[in-house]
Formats: sequence, structure tokens, C-alpha cells
Amino acid sequence: MKIIELKETITASNDRDAEVLRNEMKEKGTLLINLMASPGAGKTTLLEATINLLKDEYKVGVMEADVDSDVDAIRVEMAGAKAIQVHTGGMCHMDAGMTRHGLEELDYEGLDIVFLENVGNLICPAEFDTGAGLKVMILSTPEGDDKPLKYPLMFSESDVLIISKMDVKDYFDFDLDKCISRARKLNPNIVVFPLSSKTKEGLNEWINWLKENIKKWKQGA
Amino acid sequence: MKIIELKETITASNDRDAEVLRNEMKEKGTLLINLMASPGAGKTTLLEATINLLKDEYKVGVMEADVDSDVDAIRVEMAGAKAIQVHTGGMCHMDAGMTRHGLEELDYEGLDIVFLENVGNLICPAEFDTGAGLKVMILSTPEGDDKPLKYPLMFSESDVLIISKMDVKDYFDFDLDKCISRARKLNPNIVVFPLSSKTKEGLNEWINWLKENIKKWKQGA
Repeated sequence: MKIIELKETITASNDRDAEVLRNEMKEKGTLLINLMASPGAGKTTLLEATINLLKDEYKVGVMEADVDSDVDAIRVEMAGAKAIQVHTGGMCHMDAGMTRHGLEELDYEGLDIVFLENVGNLICPAEFDTGAGLKVMILSTPEGDDKPLKYPLMFSESDVLIISKMDVKDYFDFDLDKCISRARKLNPNIVVFPLSSKTKEGLNEWINWLKENIKKWKQGA
Repeated sequence: MKIIELKETITASNDRDAEVLRNEMKEKGTLLINLMASPGAGKTTLLEATINLLKDEYKVGVMEADVDSDVDAIRVEMAGAKAIQVHTGGMCHMDAGMTRHGLEELDYEGLDIVFLENVGNLICPAEFDTGAGLKVMILSTPEGDDKPLKYPLMFSESDVLIISKMDVKDYFDFDLDKCISRARKLNPNIVVFPLSSKTKEGLNEWINWLKENIKKWKQGA
């Protein structure tokens, strides 16, 4: 498994670079998902479960972005994905140039779907378009149902909100309805999947949504 | 309760500004604690418990820094602290100039200790000296014992590591010894307090450490 060190690219042109990258990936039929969450929300664990449920039908790639370490890339590689670890060198987010560089090193040709596991951070990654086709955020129930109030940009920018660790929601007094209504106030169209990677509750809905979107992406919709 | 909007100050002089602020606070005998953690690690809940155990002996202030919202400041004010909410306007961290501005608005004269609840983020706040006398980070057990590997700067910069939500450590397969040895590899002097704000386990050790450090700060040690 490869590890590469990335440097921030010039951000002035980031939106344009992101658009160019998105169009290239549409032509090649590879759906890039920008997966964002706090440290410990369960990004890697969900990816492992997701790869397991997709890998018989689809070719899956993962780009693990981290300030440091390579523990996540090894885990997703063992789950059956083509994986690359990218180090952001202290940077708190990925931009379009860094994403392009990572994708080239991953060699994504022929992959149906690539997950970019962004740096664990609910703030900065929301500000930068990476060129992904879809943006998915994870909020874990131990983090609390008030997080849409505190990190509004992440909730308004995401296409999908995954509420993870549903198996412990009651222990942490997590109010699912309250959380969803707070998120929808910021983003009426956000698609919500409450699930648990541990008990597998809710995983099928998320997988079906992914399959549908892989198909749509290939049709250029 | 006041809410103020802050803008980033010029960072080139940040280290010098932080040192000046730290010296001023030493002269006034107010210990400023920079409290850092991920979203949902339990910063505010720990602050409520801490205020309750300190307020009979000490005057406590809290500066709640958030990208948005004022829910935390209301909670700590109800617990018995003098509180102010500062909005960072999308910024992912507090710097020394923002901290000074917040402290002036809080009017900290006569307070024994002020907690700066930094923006929920394990990356950016570690890079900026706020002028605090001591830096305390919280890692909650649901986040995982691998976090020192992934966010090394935060662990090497902090004086204290609080491991919170110890009551659910087994459910999340959190290995306490492994986590502590990973943290100590980065920072051999880090003081560690495993605790639970819910069951109160370990809270006394943390409170005693705070009391000792308030005393030391006033003695100019």
C-alpha cells in the first residue's frame, strides 16, 4: 500500500479545479464520494462494512486522507478495496488539487466508486470542494444531537447525513427526531441514514442508495 | 449572556501576542486553560461538572468558542460560571488576539480560573498558542484508542490528556493502556486523567490537579 505526502494547492482556482475533476470522473464512470466526519465517528468502520457489501458487484477504491499514520488504509485494504493513504502534512482538509494527485496515485481507472475518507474534522473539509460527485457526512450518536447547531456548514453542504452508532443512542440521550429536524432546517434535501456498523441495522438502505447512485453516475445523470 | 463575533488576527505575531497575554494573566493571578477536543467529546459536560466542584472555593469563568450557536455558554452559565460566547465566524481555531478580545469582553478581573472551550476540532487548535497557561485535551473513548497516531500534534502540545466517557470504554473496545502509551510516546510528560462525567469516576483527581495549578499560578510558579 502506497503512502503519499500532499501539499495544499492554490485555493483561488479550487472551485474550477474541482469542477474539471468532477467532469473527468463522470466521463470515466467513477463516482467519487467525499466522506466527512469528526475523529472517531466511525468513518473507517463504516467503510469496511460498505466495502464488504459492495465488492462482489463493484470495484471499490478508497483514498484515506490523514494528517499522519496509515492505520485506516491497511484496514480498508484488508476489507477488499484498492487503497491509498495520503498524508496532508498537518493540513486540516483536502482540496481539489490534493484529491486529483491522490486519485492519480491510486490509479482509479476501472473503479466504479472511490471513497475519499477526508481528514477527521467537522469544520474545514466542508469549505473545500474536492471534485467529488457526492458529499456524505457521518455524525455518531455519542457526539450529540446538537451538532447541526454548532457545525452548520457541514450539514448544509452534505448530500447525505449518516447517523452512526445508533446502537448506543439511548445511552447518550441522542434524540434522533430532534437531530434530523435540526439538519433539515439547514438543508431540506439532505438524505438521512440512521445506522449501526456494529449491529448492521440500517446498513441496507445506505448500500441501496450507493448502488443507485453508482448507476446514475455511469448514466451521466 | 453576551455573544461576540471575532475575526482572525494577524498570525505572524501570534506567538508574541500569546506570550504577552500569558504574562498579563500571571500578574492578575487568573489561570487560563485552553480546553481542546473533537465535537462531542464531552467538553461542555465536563465543564459543568468541574464548575460545580470548584465554584464554592473559586471564581470560575468560561469562554465558549464556537463556529456558531450559544447552547454551550447557556449551559455553563447555569452551572455557576461567568460565561461568554464567542463566535469565530467559520474559523476552526482561536488565536491569541481572539482570546484577548474574548477575555476583555468577559471582564476576567478577579476570576481565579478561566476555561477557554476551544472550537471542536482535534487539528487546527493545536497549532495556535492562545496565551493560555495550560493546555488540556479531551479524548472520549467512543473516538477510539488510535487517535494519538492520527492527530499527533494535539497530543504532543497538550499538558493534560483527559480520557472521557470511561463508563462506555468496554462497549467501544477502547484499550486504555494502549492509548496512554501511544500518547506518552509523543509526549512523555503528559498528565492523564481517565474519567466519566456521568458516573463521576476519576473526577476528583482532575479537580485536585486544577486546584494545585490555580495555587501555583497565583504564586507565579
